[in-house]
Amino acid sequence: MTFIDQLNAAWQKNNSLLCVGLDPDPAKFPAHLKGRDDKIFEFCAAIVDATADLVCSFKPQIAYFAARRAEDQLEALIAHIHEKHPGIPVILDAKRGDIGSTAEQYAVEAFERFKADAVTVNPYMGRDSVDPYLAYPDKGVILLCRTSNPGGSDLQFLDVGGEKLYERVARLASGEWNSSGQISLVVGATFPAEIARVREIVGDVPLLVPGIGAQGGDIEATVRAGRTANGTGLMINSSRAILYAGKDERFAAAARQVALETRDAINLYR
Amino acid sequence: MTFIDQLNAAWQKNNSLLCVGLDPDPAKFPAHLKGRDDKIFEFCAAIVDATADLVCSFKPQIAYFAARRAEDQLEALIAHIHEKHPGIPVILDAKRGDIGSTAEQYAVEAFERFKADAVTVNPYMGRDSVDPYLAYPDKGVILLCRTSNPGGSDLQFLDVGGEKLYERVARLASGEWNSSGQISLVVGATFPAEIARVREIVGDVPLLVPGIGAQGGDIEATVRAGRTANGTGLMINSSRAILYAGKDERFAAAARQVALETRDAINLYR
Repeated sequence: MTFIDQLNAAWQKNNSLLCVGLDPDPAKFPAHLKGRDDKIFEFCAAIVDATADLVCSFKPQIAYFAARRAEDQLEALIAHIHEKHPGIPVILDAKRGDIGSTAEQYAVEAFERFKADAVTVNPYMGRDSVDPYLAYPDKGVILLCRTSNPGGSDLQFLDVGGEKLYERVARLASGEWNSSGQISLVVGATFPAEIARVREIVGDVPLLVPGIGAQGGDIEATVRAGRTANGTGLMINSSRAILYAGKDERFAAAARQVALETRDAINLYR
Repeated sequence: MTFIDQLNAAWQKNNSLLCVGLDPDPAKFPAHLKGRDDKIFEFCAAIVDATADLVCSFKPQIAYFAARRAEDQLEALIAHIHEKHPGIPVILDAKRGDIGSTAEQYAVEAFERFKADAVTVNPYMGRDSVDPYLAYPDKGVILLCRTSNPGGSDLQFLDVGGEKLYERVARLASGEWNSSGQISLVVGATFPAEIARVREIVGDVPLLVPGIGAQGGDIEATVRAGRTANGTGLMINSSRAILYAGKDERFAAAARQVALETRDAINLYR
């Protein structure tokens, strides 16, 4: 099953547009795990098991694993998701971007080594830096378009001849670069008007929307701006607000509660 | 010693603007090592030891290691360079780019885990995605500006109001983003006129120039376009042409010969 098919099925089955971001920082772990780099898998797997029926996808952020020499735990975590929660797609948030021959290596890393269903990719180097990921027909590529951080406007908001750079990226990525239909886009929740603009450009292409919760994005505005006609089309990511909802051994239950509330808050506006 | 100081010293000591790129692909290894993922360190260390007196820097490309679960060999390789060839800076070619809190993790990966002296970073997400690397005052950040691949023009060559996007990146990265003087830029050898344009914008900021050799860039045009007044300012990268110069057990000597010829060809035009 392709990434897009999995995503469609998970939207329906779990009645959810919520993506739980797995950004494990041991300094923020509950007391009994705090500071333990060797407990990253245990922490994340507990979050996954407590929320898997509430999400449309999981999104591990590779930097948090790589900073702690924990690639083995990332492999184990993705294998755990596939085994225990089949049908929930895994997005490897890696934001890779390089020339074709190197992109082929990053595609091996994401899809063959880590067995992710989709990977985030940076568009700055252009189409041939994206194509090697598309060579895996079942996999998804989620291109950065409009990011949720303050500096996102430095380049993305530049006028490139009647449109902003992020609009051009949306047009290219959903059009001529996307002949195989494998591409989705990242559009930050901190800019609902721009989510609406991207939705206008890309039709029903799925949007990964980070920035609700810790980054301050508004759920109602995000959903109204980004939903498709059938009330899907979004992977709305929340990481820290869910991961660190609890401070003690009941952290997974606390995470589930926040995930449930977030899913339901999203569903109010679909 | 800072990355920039190390680079200046290596330019002088080795009379070289050559950067050897370490992109180890076991399928291309000489016969006795071919296909051996466990021989990546051995292969790269032999290349390093055979060329260290001819280069201004080494640039391992992390994708080739990550695709083969070989981060441990990358750690060992960089430690080997620091121990056996002190003063030759190591650039981790990772092209990372993410929001501040995640960029902090990537900076830990590059500088604390792998102990690189500099890292390549993608500018698409703007200034706050670059700052966390600059928090390490001895380290260098090499921002993508104009890349050597065919798709590099898709975004980088867009007109953003009287200048191209890559020119804007050059201006921002060498100006307001670079108050600490830690930033260098990537400009591909396949576009000498654009190297000259970037040099005009950035003053003496160092340029990492991939694309000679396998990617077809011209050495004379590159050096004339990019050198500074004192005949330095460039890290001219060659990877495959050097790494795979030999097909048998004398591969390191063959690599040395090509590295020597490349360094000297560069020096003809400084």
